[in-house]
Amino acid sequence: MSTSNQQSSSRVSEDLIRALASELESQWGSDRISRNLGIREQHANTISWSASQPPDLVVYPLNTAEVADVVRSCRERGIPMVAFGAGTSFEGHLNAPHGGISIDLSRMKQVLAVNAEDLDCVVEPGITRKELNAHLRDSGLFFPIDPGADASVGGMVATRASGTNAVRYGTMKDNVLSLKVVLADGSIVKTSSRARKSSAGYDLTRLFVGSEGTLGIITEVTLKLHGIPETIGSGCCSFPSVKAACDTAITAIQSGIPIARVELLDAAQVRACNQYSKLALPETPLLLVEFHGTETGVTEQAERFGQIALDLGSSPFEWSTQAEERNRLWQARHDAYWAGLSLRPGSRGISTDVCVPISNLAQCVEETRDDIDRCGMTATILGHVGDGNFHVIPLIDIDNPAEVEMCRQFMGRLTKRALKFDGTCTGEHGIGQQKIAYLEPELGHEAVHLMKILKRAIDPTNIMNPGKILDLG
Amino acid sequence: MSTSNQQSSSRVSEDLIRALASELESQWGSDRISRNLGIREQHANTISWSASQPPDLVVYPLNTAEVADVVRSCRERGIPMVAFGAGTSFEGHLNAPHGGISIDLSRMKQVLAVNAEDLDCVVEPGITRKELNAHLRDSGLFFPIDPGADASVGGMVATRASGTNAVRYGTMKDNVLSLKVVLADGSIVKTSSRARKSSAGYDLTRLFVGSEGTLGIITEVTLKLHGIPETIGSGCCSFPSVKAACDTAITAIQSGIPIARVELLDAAQVRACNQYSKLALPETPLLLVEFHGTETGVTEQAERFGQIALDLGSSPFEWSTQAEERNRLWQARHDAYWAGLSLRPGSRGISTDVCVPISNLAQCVEETRDDIDRCGMTATILGHVGDGNFHVIPLIDIDNPAEVEMCRQFMGRLTKRALKFDGTCTGEHGIGQQKIAYLEPELGHEAVHLMKILKRAIDPTNIMNPGKILDLG
Repeated sequence: MSTSNQQSSSRVSEDLIRALASELESQWGSDRISRNLGIREQHANTISWSASQPPDLVVYPLNTAEVADVVRSCRERGIPMVAFGAGTSFEGHLNAPHGGISIDLSRMKQVLAVNAEDLDCVVEPGITRKELNAHLRDSGLFFPIDPGADASVGGMVATRASGTNAVRYGTMKDNVLSLKVVLADGSIVKTSSRARKSSAGYDLTRLFVGSEGTLGIITEVTLKLHGIPETIGSGCCSFPSVKAACDTAITAIQSGIPIARVELLDAAQVRACNQYSKLALPETPLLLVEFHGTETGVTEQAERFGQIALDLGSSPFEWSTQAEERNRLWQARHDAYWAGLSLRPGSRGISTDVCVPISNLAQCVEETRDDIDRCGMTATILGHVGDGNFHVIPLIDIDNPAEVEMCRQFMGRLTKRALKFDGTCTGEHGIGQQKIAYLEPELGHEAVHLMKILKRAIDPTNIMNPGKILDLG
Repeated sequence: MSTSNQQSSSRVSEDLIRALASELESQWGSDRISRNLGIREQHANTISWSASQPPDLVVYPLNTAEVADVVRSCRERGIPMVAFGAGTSFEGHLNAPHGGISIDLSRMKQVLAVNAEDLDCVVEPGITRKELNAHLRDSGLFFPIDPGADASVGGMVATRASGTNAVRYGTMKDNVLSLKVVLADGSIVKTSSRARKSSAGYDLTRLFVGSEGTLGIITEVTLKLHGIPETIGSGCCSFPSVKAACDTAITAIQSGIPIARVELLDAAQVRACNQYSKLALPETPLLLVEFHGTETGVTEQAERFGQIALDLGSSPFEWSTQAEERNRLWQARHDAYWAGLSLRPGSRGISTDVCVPISNLAQCVEETRDDIDRCGMTATILGHVGDGNFHVIPLIDIDNPAEVEMCRQFMGRLTKRALKFDGTCTGEHGIGQQKIAYLEPELGHEAVHLMKILKRAIDPTNIMNPGKILDLG
C-alpha cells in the first residue's frame, strides 16, 4: 500500500556494502557498525504505515570528520545514505528503498556551546530536544519547539518540525541560526555566521531546514534559545462547535494576545482523553491554551482570552499558573495519541497532518469529521489552531487490506481538501515517501521542477536519502 | 574605486537591445519602455558609492505575464536583466555592469488581497511599504518591517531587508509566506501555499528571499501582517558608554521584555541630531526604545526596562504613550541620516552595515569608533541593538580619491572586525557588488561554492542581475 512501492527498487550490490563495512570496521572498530537485521529494521520506518525497507548497514560516526569520511566512501561506491536521528518521523523518511546505509547520529549529542547572552547554543544533531532542555535547565533558557515526540534536533531541522507552541515561537525554520552540513561530495559547509540576522548571500540555512536528508547531512546546529517565562498560565474551555473554538483562536490572535499554545481537541479526542486519563470533560470541542509572560501579563492575557471565548459560546475558561494544575491539563494533551488508540484496542494510529489558513480551519476540520463519519472510521482530530495545522489519527487494523485502502483514500481526500482551502499537504511532518504525489498538486509543476533542479545540482548521483520528497524517475 | 570595476565588462550588443526595444514597443506601446539617459541613470545606483553603470533600456511591465514575456525575450537574446523596485538599495544592487535592461516593477503595485482573519495579504512587488500601510490603515493591521527608506516590497524581499523593529517582528525572511517568481527561462513558480507553516519540500520561498534578483524576478508577494498594537510606548535614556547601553538591551531581552524597537545612537550621532533637530540630549550614547502591547503591558515593560537601564548607569528612562511625544522622538531617529550629513556639509554619507552576536556588539562598536577617530574621519554609528546590527555612516568628500580610499580601507577593517566577532558582513543591506569579496571570508569557500552551484543551476546563462552576490569569473 505504501507509495514507496512505486519507487524503482534497484538495490546497491552486496559486494559494495561488504567493502564499505570492512573499510569502516578496520578504521572505527566493530562496535560502530552493524549488519544485524533487528538493528537495521529499527533504522527503517517503525512508526509509519509504509512498508519497512531497512538499510543494509548501520554506522555510528562520532564527529563531522567521520561523517564526511563515510559520505566520501559512499559517494565513491554509489551507496545511498539515510541520516538517522531518533526515528520519530512519520512519512517514511527513514526507509532505504534502494538499500545502502543508515548514518545513525545518535552518538553525536554534545552541547558544544551555550551562549546565554546571545540566547543561542551550538549542538550536535543527535541530541534530543528533551536532553537539550535538561542541559539548559540551570541557564534560565529553553529551546521551545515541541513536536510531541522526543525527536533529535538534527531530525527536527531536517523535517522543519514545529508543534504546539509554534504559534508563539515559530517552527524550526525560525529557530535555526546556522548549520554545518556534509554534502554528497564530502565537503563541509557552514551555512551562516552566528549573527541574529544576515543578508549575506543565499539563505543556505533554510535550504537545508526541511530538506529531509536529501541535500546533505547535518552535523552541527546553532539554535536560538528563549528565556524561560516568569509565569506560565494554562487553561481550557469547551465549545459548542469546532467553528466557535477556531473563531475564538482567530479573534484572540488578531487582538494581539500572544498565545503560547492553543490546541484544539475534537469531541472524539475529548471522549478518548476522558476514558484514558479519567477526566470528566464535556465531550464537545475543547481548546487547551497556554500563556507565557509576567504574572500581570499572563493574568491579563487569560482574562481577555476567557472573555473572547465566552462571547463565542464557550464554557467559562478555567486556568491556573500552578505547575501541578498545568501539568495535569497538558498530560491529557500529551497522552492524546495513546488515548486515541484506546478507542479501538489493537488498532494502529496512522498520524497525518495538513495545514490551512486559519480562516479556513473550522470548515476544513468539519468537512474532515464528516468524511471520517461517512467512512465509518474511528479517528481523532487534534489541531495546533493558531497555525491552522491539524492532525488526523485514523485507527485502523493494519492487517485488513480493505481498511488500509479506505484509509489511504481518506488521506488523499484530506490532502485535496487542504489544498482546496489554500493549504499545504503537511504543516510539520514532511513529505518523506508518502506525500510525494501531493507536492505537485500543491505547488505546481514548475515549483517541483525547480526542487528537482536543486536536488540534481547538489546531489547529482542521488545518493542522499533517495526516494524522498521528489520522484526523480 | 568600486569593486564593480573588477567585474568583466563584456557588454551586450546595441543590436540586441534595439531589437528587444522595438519588439516591446510594438507590443506595449512607447510609454512603457525608455532609452532616455536620465531615466537609465536613475535606474542604476543613485545612493551608493559604486560607479554608476546604467542599463541600456528601462521597461515597465504591468503584470506577471508581461514580466515572463520580457524574461523570455531577454533569455533568447542573452540580454542581462536587473529588477528595479524603488531604487533604495545601498550596495550596488542595481548597476548593469554588462548592460542590458532594468525591469522597473513600480507600475505593479496592486494590493491583490487582504485576508484580515489570516493576518496576511497578497501584493504586487512595486508597492512600497508606506503605500501598503496606508492601504491597510482601516483594517487594524500593519506590515511592520521598516528599513527606514520607503522601499518597495519586492526590493525588501530581494535584499532580505529588516530595520528598527526586527527584534520583535523578525526580518523579511520571517514575514514572507509565499512568492510568485519568474525564472530565467520564463517559467512562473509559486513557492508555497498560504498556510502559516509547511513542511512540504524545499523552502523555495527562502531561496528567493535575499537572492537580490539573481535567481528570478519576484512578481507577487504574500506577506504576514500584524495587529496594530493597542498601546505604543516610546522613550529614551542616555548612557555613560556604548557598553552600558548594549548591556541594558541584552539584559532586557534576556529577561523576556518583548521590546519592539531598541536603537542605539552613538555620541557623534546624538550630537548631529541635537544640531539638526534642535534637541538638547546629553551627547553620550543614547537608546531609543519602543514597546507594543496593552496599556498595562506597555507600562510594565517600560518600567522594567527603565529599572534595568538605571541599574546599568543610565539617566532616568523618560517615556510616553502619546503619539505626539513618540513621533517627536522617532523623528530624530528617522532624520539621523540627514542629521549626520549636517556634521560635514557637502559630504556624501556612505551607509554600510554589519551584524554580530549581541554579546559582542559593544566591543565591536567601540573598536569601530576608535578606528574612525584614528582615521580622523567624520562618521556616525546607529545600531539596531536588539539584533546586534549596526550602521556606520562615514561622511566623505566623494571627489577626493585619498578620502575615498581611506573609507574603502575602513570598510574592509569594519567587515573583518565583524567576522572576528562571529558576525556577518551585512545584517540587512545585502551583498550587491560591493561586498562580494567578503562572502568567502565569512562563510568559507565551500559555502560560496554551493551558492555558485545554486546560481548556475537556476540561471545557467547568468542573465539575472549578473555581477551581484557572486563573482562567477
